[in-house]
Amino acid sequence: MPGRPRDPFHWLEEAERLRHRAGLNRTLRPRAANRSGLDLAGNDYLGLARHPQITDAAAAAARRWGAGSTGSRLVTGSTELHAELEAELAAFCGFEAALVLASGYAANLAAVTALTDSGTLLVSDAANHASLIDGCRLSRARTAVVPHSDPDAVRKTLDGHPGRALALTDSVFSVDGDAAPLGALAAACRAYGAALLVDDAHGLGVLGDGGRGAPHAAGLAGGPDTVVTVTLSKSLAAQGGAVLGPARVIDHLVSTARTFIFDTGLAPAATAAALAALRLLRAEPARAARVRAAAAGLHDRLTAAGLTGARPDAAVVSVHAPTPQAAVRWQAECASRGLTVGCFRPPSVPDGISRLRLTARADLTGADLDHAADVIVSTAPPGARSGHG
Amino acid sequence: MPGRPRDPFHWLEEAERLRHRAGLNRTLRPRAANRSGLDLAGNDYLGLARHPQITDAAAAAARRWGAGSTGSRLVTGSTELHAELEAELAAFCGFEAALVLASGYAANLAAVTALTDSGTLLVSDAANHASLIDGCRLSRARTAVVPHSDPDAVRKTLDGHPGRALALTDSVFSVDGDAAPLGALAAACRAYGAALLVDDAHGLGVLGDGGRGAPHAAGLAGGPDTVVTVTLSKSLAAQGGAVLGPARVIDHLVSTARTFIFDTGLAPAATAAALAALRLLRAEPARAARVRAAAAGLHDRLTAAGLTGARPDAAVVSVHAPTPQAAVRWQAECASRGLTVGCFRPPSVPDGISRLRLTARADLTGADLDHAADVIVSTAPPGARSGHG
Repeated sequence: MPGRPRDPFHWLEEAERLRHRAGLNRTLRPRAANRSGLDLAGNDYLGLARHPQITDAAAAAARRWGAGSTGSRLVTGSTELHAELEAELAAFCGFEAALVLASGYAANLAAVTALTDSGTLLVSDAANHASLIDGCRLSRARTAVVPHSDPDAVRKTLDGHPGRALALTDSVFSVDGDAAPLGALAAACRAYGAALLVDDAHGLGVLGDGGRGAPHAAGLAGGPDTVVTVTLSKSLAAQGGAVLGPARVIDHLVSTARTFIFDTGLAPAATAAALAALRLLRAEPARAARVRAAAAGLHDRLTAAGLTGARPDAAVVSVHAPTPQAAVRWQAECASRGLTVGCFRPPSVPDGISRLRLTARADLTGADLDHAADVIVSTAPPGARSGHG
Repeated sequence: MPGRPRDPFHWLEEAERLRHRAGLNRTLRPRAANRSGLDLAGNDYLGLARHPQITDAAAAAARRWGAGSTGSRLVTGSTELHAELEAELAAFCGFEAALVLASGYAANLAAVTALTDSGTLLVSDAANHASLIDGCRLSRARTAVVPHSDPDAVRKTLDGHPGRALALTDSVFSVDGDAAPLGALAAACRAYGAALLVDDAHGLGVLGDGGRGAPHAAGLAGGPDTVVTVTLSKSLAAQGGAVLGPARVIDHLVSTARTFIFDTGLAPAATAAALAALRLLRAEPARAARVRAAAAGLHDRLTAAGLTGARPDAAVVSVHAPTPQAAVRWQAECASRGLTVGCFRPPSVPDGISRLRLTARADLTGADLDHAADVIVSTAPPGARSGHG
């Protein structure tokens, strides 16, 4: 092998240099248990991750059922806890059946790959989550990427295709927090006999009657042609994901979805925590409205001070920054004042606009919102205010 | 759309019929917390899933850190617990660095996709786990499938390829429990400047000095060209997975692996349980040898009674059945007598031989092994004994 480099990872340094130049190197910053300050970066929308009812349920389940599920859901990894969560989650969201997987990522890979074959057309929104995109890549289907939130484009794409088709969309998009036009998308799919897969990761617990999610709010729950994926790690404060849909779809996934069959079942503690969070949400349905009110309140405070960003449809609040560098500095300024916020820069944002990304929670007080807005406004870079951008 | 069926899932019934005919429909059978009997089907190799030290650690972590990690590891999902587990896991297995993901499936997808580009050649063992196969499919690389455990075939495949290459293998294969020839595979890779990715899901805790895993036993730990994936859901009794390797490889995954970046971090309870299990294994290294002795003891008892199956290299014990139908009935007979065992039939077994699949655990007593062997032998179908097959 003369001339061949002996180091099979020789290319990593160059990849690192390219990422560095593009500002794309990422670093882990582990947090302490007792971190002080205000967190507007996590996805614990209902404020339940540290709620005693939820953490007690997790602790009790670890002791009663064990620390792990010990195997695939098809072998030893299905407990009565999993079955309870599946039954209650399906009923709450208005679907016939549900299937719990170890992550939301696995749920999307399962749904996309198991519901398609090589003759299927996938019609995927340009702003869909990485796990839906990877589902498309992993499937043997052909994927057509359509412009963001454009039901007419979905119609036009379906129009030319004679075989099976599945349209895919996030219900709430992660970057800007904008909601998909689910009703119009469902109408487009129905007109062409296509199925619709909705990733409701950011909708469950936040949108719809008592937090039943965006598909429920759009009148799509229980539809024979609608499949929904959710995460158990955002509003439900735990870990894992689920697929909701007609019983025959769920049965099909049990027998065919590789990320379900060949993965260890969700741990009992996470299963029990998600179930406890679901029950708490059912008992306290106002939590969903409180998340939305907190997001709107934050947006109102920031825009009143001259900052700009899309009006939030759910819990995610986006604030525009003038440059990528300014966004990074802004995020660091917030952190130095005890406020944790997210930050999106190109190429993660297709429109090229860098942003701070804030997430609202049901347990934020008016004082929290005032304080957060104060910090964000007072650390805003020149050019962040409208008219100066 | 005249002629097009309006029901986008019309094809599910036919798919169900085909699966039924092939005996491939699967059903969930949730277990109770207090299920009696002997479980030889789970992957809790060290017998730690219900060990009080492990479940206490899980319970305490849920209370201290919350029920969920609340976000991506790159945003709010990294706790000091994750960092501790990564440092101790890397040190235990002999690697520079480790990265914890939400599942072993996600770890394999992360490693394969992040370490390849469209010019890379993947050389994949024909018996590799579904998650490695899906990693190959999800990557943009070209995949060459080579015969099972055949280092010469790996050499020949690498010989014709001028660019980057990565060979992939399970360390212990799930169906027969046989170990891969890691030393010879590594030598083949080194001769051609290729990297080697070893999925040590069934090796960690079972093989190597004190359970340090198959790569450690083969002298590959810490090698600059070796990357290892493990699960936290088998020997470590929790949930999740990890990638181990050179620090520069792990750094690369942090910045580029989509199933790491775009997934919620592992829940604190699972993280703490895996860490507690790792510490317990370090304190009680004989547990690894006890798993292997239990597997060998089971195999010896079964073959002494005339049953056949490959000699176990780790914890998985395989017993041949004469027909797929006989294997299913055999499994059911065992279950009716309180013994849970797994079952593999075509097309899950490439050689067409149906099997019972038993898993040994460190906490099985001699009496457990006697009882298990009694049940399996006394329920064996005609033709299962050697000479009658």
